[in-house]
Amino acid sequence: MFELKERDGLARICELRTGHGKVTTPALLPVVNPNQLTITPADMRDRFGVKILITNSYIIWNDPKLREEVERSDLHSLLGFDGPIMTDSGTFQNYVYGDVQVDHREIVRFQESIGADIGTILDVFSEPKFTREENEAAVAETLRRAGESIQLKGEMLLAGPVQGGIHTDLRSHCAEELSKMDFDVHPIGGVVPLLEGYRYEDLAEVIIASKKGLDPSRPVHLFGAGHPMVFPMAVLLGCDMFDSSSYAKYAREDRVMLPTGTRFLNDLYDLACSCPACSRTSVEELRQMPRADRTRIIAEHNLHISLRELDVVKNAIHEGSLWELVEMRARAHPSLLAALKVLRKHADYLERFENTSRHGAFFYCGPESYDRPTARRYRERFFSRYRRPEKQVLVGFEEAEKPYSRTYSREIASISSKVDASYLVASFFGPVPMELDEFYPLAQSLVPRDLDPCVLERMTRTMERHAHSHGYPLAVMWDGEETLDFLADLVPGPGRDDFDLLRCSAVLDMQFGRGAADILKGREVAFIKSRNTGKIRNVLVDGTHVLSMRAHDGRFTLKLEGARLLMGVLPPPAMRVTVHDDAVEFVAKGANVFAKFVLDCDPVIRPGDDVMVVDPGDKLVATGRALMVQEEMRAFEAGMAVRVKESRD
Amino acid sequence: MFELKERDGLARICELRTGHGKVTTPALLPVVNPNQLTITPADMRDRFGVKILITNSYIIWNDPKLREEVERSDLHSLLGFDGPIMTDSGTFQNYVYGDVQVDHREIVRFQESIGADIGTILDVFSEPKFTREENEAAVAETLRRAGESIQLKGEMLLAGPVQGGIHTDLRSHCAEELSKMDFDVHPIGGVVPLLEGYRYEDLAEVIIASKKGLDPSRPVHLFGAGHPMVFPMAVLLGCDMFDSSSYAKYAREDRVMLPTGTRFLNDLYDLACSCPACSRTSVEELRQMPRADRTRIIAEHNLHISLRELDVVKNAIHEGSLWELVEMRARAHPSLLAALKVLRKHADYLERFENTSRHGAFFYCGPESYDRPTARRYRERFFSRYRRPEKQVLVGFEEAEKPYSRTYSREIASISSKVDASYLVASFFGPVPMELDEFYPLAQSLVPRDLDPCVLERMTRTMERHAHSHGYPLAVMWDGEETLDFLADLVPGPGRDDFDLLRCSAVLDMQFGRGAADILKGREVAFIKSRNTGKIRNVLVDGTHVLSMRAHDGRFTLKLEGARLLMGVLPPPAMRVTVHDDAVEFVAKGANVFAKFVLDCDPVIRPGDDVMVVDPGDKLVATGRALMVQEEMRAFEAGMAVRVKESRD
Repeated sequence: MFELKERDGLARICELRTGHGKVTTPALLPVVNPNQLTITPADMRDRFGVKILITNSYIIWNDPKLREEVERSDLHSLLGFDGPIMTDSGTFQNYVYGDVQVDHREIVRFQESIGADIGTILDVFSEPKFTREENEAAVAETLRRAGESIQLKGEMLLAGPVQGGIHTDLRSHCAEELSKMDFDVHPIGGVVPLLEGYRYEDLAEVIIASKKGLDPSRPVHLFGAGHPMVFPMAVLLGCDMFDSSSYAKYAREDRVMLPTGTRFLNDLYDLACSCPACSRTSVEELRQMPRADRTRIIAEHNLHISLRELDVVKNAIHEGSLWELVEMRARAHPSLLAALKVLRKHADYLERFENTSRHGAFFYCGPESYDRPTARRYRERFFSRYRRPEKQVLVGFEEAEKPYSRTYSREIASISSKVDASYLVASFFGPVPMELDEFYPLAQSLVPRDLDPCVLERMTRTMERHAHSHGYPLAVMWDGEETLDFLADLVPGPGRDDFDLLRCSAVLDMQFGRGAADILKGREVAFIKSRNTGKIRNVLVDGTHVLSMRAHDGRFTLKLEGARLLMGVLPPPAMRVTVHDDAVEFVAKGANVFAKFVLDCDPVIRPGDDVMVVDPGDKLVATGRALMVQEEMRAFEAGMAVRVKESRD
Repeated sequence: MFELKERDGLARICELRTGHGKVTTPALLPVVNPNQLTITPADMRDRFGVKILITNSYIIWNDPKLREEVERSDLHSLLGFDGPIMTDSGTFQNYVYGDVQVDHREIVRFQESIGADIGTILDVFSEPKFTREENEAAVAETLRRAGESIQLKGEMLLAGPVQGGIHTDLRSHCAEELSKMDFDVHPIGGVVPLLEGYRYEDLAEVIIASKKGLDPSRPVHLFGAGHPMVFPMAVLLGCDMFDSSSYAKYAREDRVMLPTGTRFLNDLYDLACSCPACSRTSVEELRQMPRADRTRIIAEHNLHISLRELDVVKNAIHEGSLWELVEMRARAHPSLLAALKVLRKHADYLERFENTSRHGAFFYCGPESYDRPTARRYRERFFSRYRRPEKQVLVGFEEAEKPYSRTYSREIASISSKVDASYLVASFFGPVPMELDEFYPLAQSLVPRDLDPCVLERMTRTMERHAHSHGYPLAVMWDGEETLDFLADLVPGPGRDDFDLLRCSAVLDMQFGRGAADILKGREVAFIKSRNTGKIRNVLVDGTHVLSMRAHDGRFTLKLEGARLLMGVLPPPAMRVTVHDDAVEFVAKGANVFAKFVLDCDPVIRPGDDVMVVDPGDKLVATGRALMVQEEMRAFEAGMAVRVKESRD
């Protein structure tokens, strides 16, 4: 029903299957009001490429003429649209007008009877201004109705909205309870007042709290969010679906949507847009058009712009750069920037879903980048996983061109000819031991030299923590040849490092967990290197090729033999994905691991991690790349959990 | 020839008149290679709305067939384009291929003879890697050729490029010398290697150094800059023209341009673009097209995107939000962010051109916003212009909802019933006396609550400076009713402020200069206020309406009688624009002041300032709004310098 295809942290490109075809998410569902068609559904499909619509079943139910018509044919005929159609239930109408007179069971039955692909229960709108008691009541009533409604869904997919106002514990509670029922989609409801008030901090908190409670294998719909301004951040936090009536509503007030905000037509110097609607007119002509024409053109523009922003978001997910997009777009409004700052509180949660690597560089976008999951993960793992070589002396270097070991090769050669030392760079990401300098994201990052003082200060505190925790007897910052003379007097004896071995050990511990490097202990280790770049390509242990180092991110791809060695030093469940007995024979022959066949996996596994696929008796079946984390492997019914690289048979 | 229409600091929307029609700048001139027409000039005009092209006269001169054809007809016939055409001279070809064999006088004569609207001299390309001596030589030779070429321009407009590599003093020197000659356009040359190497810090320094030396009434062309990534910042720094061959070059390598960077077609998940080129195809179809079709479509996309980004920039100039756009776009690449940070060094220069006010709010976008000219100006003027009321006690409040005086009205009433105090808010912009709280940009700003610590620290230092410089005997931060009891014991006596008078005085000093508020001294001052908002609308002195306060920015519009009073307390040239005797009679009757009739003006006048227009004997002729600063009023031959509001006769 809902299958994960690509991801960037909690953000994901998925495929949602419905009775009227597949939809790729993140998706925008334009709201179609059958009484007021600014753009017809047929036009939406043909001229806008819209794949799924949303309309309001209560409006149809409540209008004798529409109701008669839909009961004579069906919803798809009524709207003239043969793709999937979602229906809302009247909850929002009740919130706005307070006069919805339909039983919650009847409206679900009605949606099912007219052929909605995705129906929605009649939940209780929880307003941001609600007291805790009011929200508790809204949640309780929503859950009660959910329990009664779920039995009536029939063939229809059913959406169970999360309520709870801005009480985040109620949101999580409501989400958990709804996840126990057989819902197919989870809208996050009651957020329109937050959107209208630019309360993006609260919005971010509400989304995160809801996501934490929800079954991760179900699509999440941010109900009523139709402005492209919020799409990147909402998707970053795990929202899959949006609906827009704003494109038309805004147009009726001559308000032009942009990915970065809204402008009144009269305030524009130029339309500054190449979309099909704007290409037909100039700003002057548009201003002078009859109202109906003007509204239609602005609505078309608004819809184009909104749809395109979700495509931009998909591109960012595809290339793993959604954080950069969000940090950039956050500059469109100080309230978005405030919401970005809030994410820092949830960095541990967000880190759990973050890919371990990507093609392309980490871009520094501002002080908030310091708390991006990738940066935090490096620091956290450095302190918990990295084991320093047995040296007396640590020589620190300033941030420089990457990779550092090439930039400082002359200095290192000079020092190691006299002193047996470790080397480190004080980087934006934290302390970077020289042997880790090619490990993603360290080499694959662009950070301006002139950093914000608050970032520098946090870097300094991290360096101090390192000095404290890793306890080198002597640590100095490199300051030219005098440093060398000073060191040579104190710590005689040149270094005799196998730098490749150091690199290999450090990457093993950082990538697979502290202790992984013990697979090299007491064994004969050899390296095959790239003739062009001098980088390690293959690692041979006792003559067997066990690991391959990827040029683009300095991490290992695990050979089957390497996995066997790792299993010897890392006790279960470390880096294992355990598959059902039924799947073993297929995976052993090279089939990928699908989520429904996963029994369990190490909670430490992150998307992109190289993992061991094992049978229930911890026997190695294959190696591969994880695409999901534990709770997703447990929850998803469809989709790939591990892309198998090398298999046993 | 070149007329200022709208501006946002150094950024400007201007009109350039040529032999083949007017062009609005900032403008992108697509490069047309007559030998390789990816998009025809006719298509550019009809389908892209391109108003001006650039082509290379050396390529035509050097190709017997083209040369014969152009000499038989003319340049416009050759290209099939009836709008303005600029020609380059072969300088860049000489830099790339080193084999340009044409005399610098001959190529200028050639350009003139074939009917180019704007020709370019054959200057010497100064590479970033040039030593100082090499750059000195390049500048000297460029200036020598410039002097010989300028005599040959005839009816053609002629472009004299600024050279000097990355030696900023040489750039300024070259710019100054060229400005003495009768050039019509000034390209900034030699920047392509900076652009290719993402050396945006150097680029910013080079542009600023060139601008500082250039006649401000001439258009500046950033030669070879065709990527939309650089447009917002380059325009912010005063560039008016760009040329793009990149749209086609990138397309030949399957590189898709975005306002925020470049992507290989193969790396895209979706085209994510609504332009006419992208609307015809999907990313999959495009990948599978024959090479020539693919290249054409990507080139068309690249050109659409590039043209639109300049329209986005124009919108930002129009609404005064270009800084916000630049700060947002700077997140597209850490090198752009580094360039943004460089601007801090030039904040004083940039401040001189910055508008005093705008419709719409100041948005905080990051730590760099602290150094935005508007923010720096407030702090600078607060220290140099604001005079504190004669109080013993200063009560400080935390940042809060704006306007502050409304938010804290209860506290102020409570304190002033017991203590005669001044009130202040510790804001992002610096110390804000309560009576200035509606003054732009203080009330008209959005700043997130959770500020970056480095910004907070700078705010604290500013507050300390204030405590020191304005010397209240007693200063406390408001901390509830206890503060009041504490104060009441120390400083007895309730306050008896006329808060409107305080506001009026503070705004007068801040807006017109320290001392301006003395016009109220010893006079009877009355206020007419808005019935809806309670805000001051008109100020009457001794019964005469002298000032009107604008609701949107809390600043005064000067009535003629107010101007007379101000002239009595502020000696010349303060806030005066002196016009030529010939213009006096027209301006006195309400005509606007055109730049060519300005004799001189106060160097402190900023765009948007309310000024006094006076005759050479310092007699008041009119009041109005300045659109230019001193050096622009002196330099521009066309365009309005002061929009007159009220005139003498």
